[in-house]
Amino acid sequence: MNGAESLVRTLLAGGVDTCFANPGTSEMHFVAALDRVPGMRCVLGLFEGVVTGAADGYARMADKPAATLLHLGPGFGNGIANIHNAGRAGSPMINIVGDHATYHRAFDAPLTSDIEGLAAPVSHWIKTSPDAQSVATDGAAAIAAALKPPGQIATLILPANTAWDEADGPAEAVAAARRSEVSDEAIQGAFQVLKAGEPSVLFMTGQSLREEALRQAGRIAAVTGARLMAQTNNGREERGAGRVNVERLPYPLDQALTALDGIKHIILVGAKAPVAFFAYPGKPSVLYPEGCNIHTLATREEDCVPALSQLSDRLGAPPAGVGVTDHEKTELPSGALSPQSIAQSVAALLPDQGIVVDEGISSGRLVPEMTRSSAPHDWLQICGGAIGIGMPLSVGAAVACPDRRVLGLQADGSGMYTLQALWTQARENLNVTTVVFANRRYASLHHELANVGAGNPGRRALDMLDLDRPDLDWVKLAQGMGVAAEAANDAPSFNRLLDYGLRSDGPFLIQANL
Amino acid sequence: MNGAESLVRTLLAGGVDTCFANPGTSEMHFVAALDRVPGMRCVLGLFEGVVTGAADGYARMADKPAATLLHLGPGFGNGIANIHNAGRAGSPMINIVGDHATYHRAFDAPLTSDIEGLAAPVSHWIKTSPDAQSVATDGAAAIAAALKPPGQIATLILPANTAWDEADGPAEAVAAARRSEVSDEAIQGAFQVLKAGEPSVLFMTGQSLREEALRQAGRIAAVTGARLMAQTNNGREERGAGRVNVERLPYPLDQALTALDGIKHIILVGAKAPVAFFAYPGKPSVLYPEGCNIHTLATREEDCVPALSQLSDRLGAPPAGVGVTDHEKTELPSGALSPQSIAQSVAALLPDQGIVVDEGISSGRLVPEMTRSSAPHDWLQICGGAIGIGMPLSVGAAVACPDRRVLGLQADGSGMYTLQALWTQARENLNVTTVVFANRRYASLHHELANVGAGNPGRRALDMLDLDRPDLDWVKLAQGMGVAAEAANDAPSFNRLLDYGLRSDGPFLIQANL
Repeated sequence: MNGAESLVRTLLAGGVDTCFANPGTSEMHFVAALDRVPGMRCVLGLFEGVVTGAADGYARMADKPAATLLHLGPGFGNGIANIHNAGRAGSPMINIVGDHATYHRAFDAPLTSDIEGLAAPVSHWIKTSPDAQSVATDGAAAIAAALKPPGQIATLILPANTAWDEADGPAEAVAAARRSEVSDEAIQGAFQVLKAGEPSVLFMTGQSLREEALRQAGRIAAVTGARLMAQTNNGREERGAGRVNVERLPYPLDQALTALDGIKHIILVGAKAPVAFFAYPGKPSVLYPEGCNIHTLATREEDCVPALSQLSDRLGAPPAGVGVTDHEKTELPSGALSPQSIAQSVAALLPDQGIVVDEGISSGRLVPEMTRSSAPHDWLQICGGAIGIGMPLSVGAAVACPDRRVLGLQADGSGMYTLQALWTQARENLNVTTVVFANRRYASLHHELANVGAGNPGRRALDMLDLDRPDLDWVKLAQGMGVAAEAANDAPSFNRLLDYGLRSDGPFLIQANL
Repeated sequence: MNGAESLVRTLLAGGVDTCFANPGTSEMHFVAALDRVPGMRCVLGLFEGVVTGAADGYARMADKPAATLLHLGPGFGNGIANIHNAGRAGSPMINIVGDHATYHRAFDAPLTSDIEGLAAPVSHWIKTSPDAQSVATDGAAAIAAALKPPGQIATLILPANTAWDEADGPAEAVAAARRSEVSDEAIQGAFQVLKAGEPSVLFMTGQSLREEALRQAGRIAAVTGARLMAQTNNGREERGAGRVNVERLPYPLDQALTALDGIKHIILVGAKAPVAFFAYPGKPSVLYPEGCNIHTLATREEDCVPALSQLSDRLGAPPAGVGVTDHEKTELPSGALSPQSIAQSVAALLPDQGIVVDEGISSGRLVPEMTRSSAPHDWLQICGGAIGIGMPLSVGAAVACPDRRVLGLQADGSGMYTLQALWTQARENLNVTTVVFANRRYASLHHELANVGAGNPGRRALDMLDLDRPDLDWVKLAQGMGVAAEAANDAPSFNRLLDYGLRSDGPFLIQANL
């Protein structure tokens, strides 16, 4: 058994059975091992940003890491943006990066690069295997590193000869670290703050946005009046009918300041103290008012669910909390197509246990509020601000959850970054319906240009913000990659296409002409 | 005048008047300055790999750097693969990367990343401007760094407040370093080697593949019988009728070993001693025979043209060398479409002063030999092995040379990496004709799998090497981005479409169904 096969078997032994891949020469032995070792699902992406974004989406929904297979430094480089996003989301990921054979590196062949250097800024764990005998144990260590709470980026670099040389066999799984317990001191601290009755916010992300944690938070809100608020961007939120609804800190700076105005205490549950996404001239970087106190109930490495439960018990909260959402049927919209009508249509048609992948950016901002009473669903967002995650994330979520429906809300400018993901959706026949908000511009940048005080844009500046001349034809782009697609120009046709997409098998794309 | 405007004016004062851009919030002041400062051509790319590949293509043809405008660490990350390629090509490039405001970094907002860390492995020069007053002088230093021979990657990181705060004004251009002279010792060393008359190769790349240097090399070959050989991959080669033709070291390892068999001396002219692109089990990493001596006439930082001239004079070479290519008319092919027929068609139709951008990989391998006697043209290759450079490189070459025709030879697998470049070709109405070799596979990997001894691939391995199920429809992909396109299924239709593309204004794409 060579090093590559020892790695594939080690990954499987450690519960890692899905690999998103864009291999090259140095990864050929890993690819060949797939034929000899059953059980590894290997999904090809035609660009590495697809591969890493899909691994993130998979991890969020499967609650375990996928592997990626990447080709040397440039292949890793192409995946960096979505690795950055995954790191911010706390998603576990195991990047396997082929490199030149150890003895070949000194010759500085054209593809030679400093892979560890490229990986360091976005990896929590990095190792270059020195020889074939080390690959299996390094692989087991990579799995353990990825599983370290809240979920980490592990990057394992495999020189080509470590893949083809003879190895000893697979390594056993290393016991993964568990989330550490929240200290009683932290629970007591939050208890005292909440007991005092001053205006308080539970500021939440990560595990605290899953159903059971939300239920406990709802109990706390019931006895204390504390507001429940999620970060602006969250890796995964369980929401909709039957779940405790939480407000979300708005992205626009002034709205965020208003939302937190008058708050005396922010209790962090997996989140960090709220700060502005960008700095703006003359505006604050922190979003909470002066004199507001920041307390930590649980860090993102800690297990917030029992902590919330203990806190609510200590507060004498009733079993039933506040904020549980009733299912409310939304009527289908008629008339013109608009961000508003799309939000209404999504609210009406979102299927039970749907997975919403939200990279809707400007045009999608109305959908979360409209869907709060829709059928229960999961909501996945871009956590690191690196656009181009949406369609890859949908790939990964659909691979992780073949029995559920994925709805991608996709801004057109962001979608262009990793549109190759559509091909993977077609090849794997994934149940993903993508709604492209075709406004033909980086609409957020129109706002941001004003927000940073850069004045009224003229022709040359606008050319950098608009995607017109020519307009993108997303129907053709999708069809070109084997994904059926249609355009919608009014609300009724959008309703019909969305219903069709969410009911039919395989991928579908709707170009929503705004 | 704010820092951003001081930079734009400094770039213009330093002769940098073209910027390939994909800006975000932190770059809005740079974008706004474009309206106030005439003279900077700013070209939008819908993905950063397009931006950096275009800057490379521009630099190769304009012999001066373009600027790129990139958004924080992930934006830079998306550009890394083609920056790597540019570095290997010796292309000058000035990357301007926006970052959070200096005072905002400590808050670790979602897009915060270690930009300097990401930039270090692929940059020769890095600076983060500390304040607005420093931006102009830092910009001038970046230009000088980029111009340092043979051409360097300079990365200037601009925290947002250094762009919007008040600056003192633009900085004057810093005198750029010139190529250093080749020592007389090096010329005399090459002279003695060549005089001895043992089997020798002048191994060339970079400036030595321009017309005048080639002419001098042809004189040397005439009196010494030395072979003239280019690297496998070169940034730019002037070739075709009237130019001295050089053979090119083959990519396949065994062919390369054969090509250099029996050689006693390799004289490097801007090149490095030939090594294998990848290592293969049981095969050597160096491509020249044991006992072969490596000599350096000129490093890539040195000025090889006068050195070649002096060397040929010292050798008593006649003014007219050998190897000057006559123009030979090639007949148009008929019959089936094949890599062979495409090569023949290109040879027949390549226009005078055409620019060939070659990312044809496997299917394009026959074109160089077929076109050696075509009309004079430039040939641009992928130098760092990071696929996904072709269509961006065509963008940059066409922007640099609006009066010339660009022909892109594009493998389908590689093309998918940065297909967004087609949109920029459409928006800028660039005279680029792209031939997509649609073989629906990473054909090179089929060979490489065998070469690394990974055996016969089964279904699961083949799934990682083939781009079928579904087939890509490049006609729709191109049309979706506003580029006219047609498919060719036989040689006559390919001839017709290629002729049409090379004669009509604006971009055109031909899907060559192989």
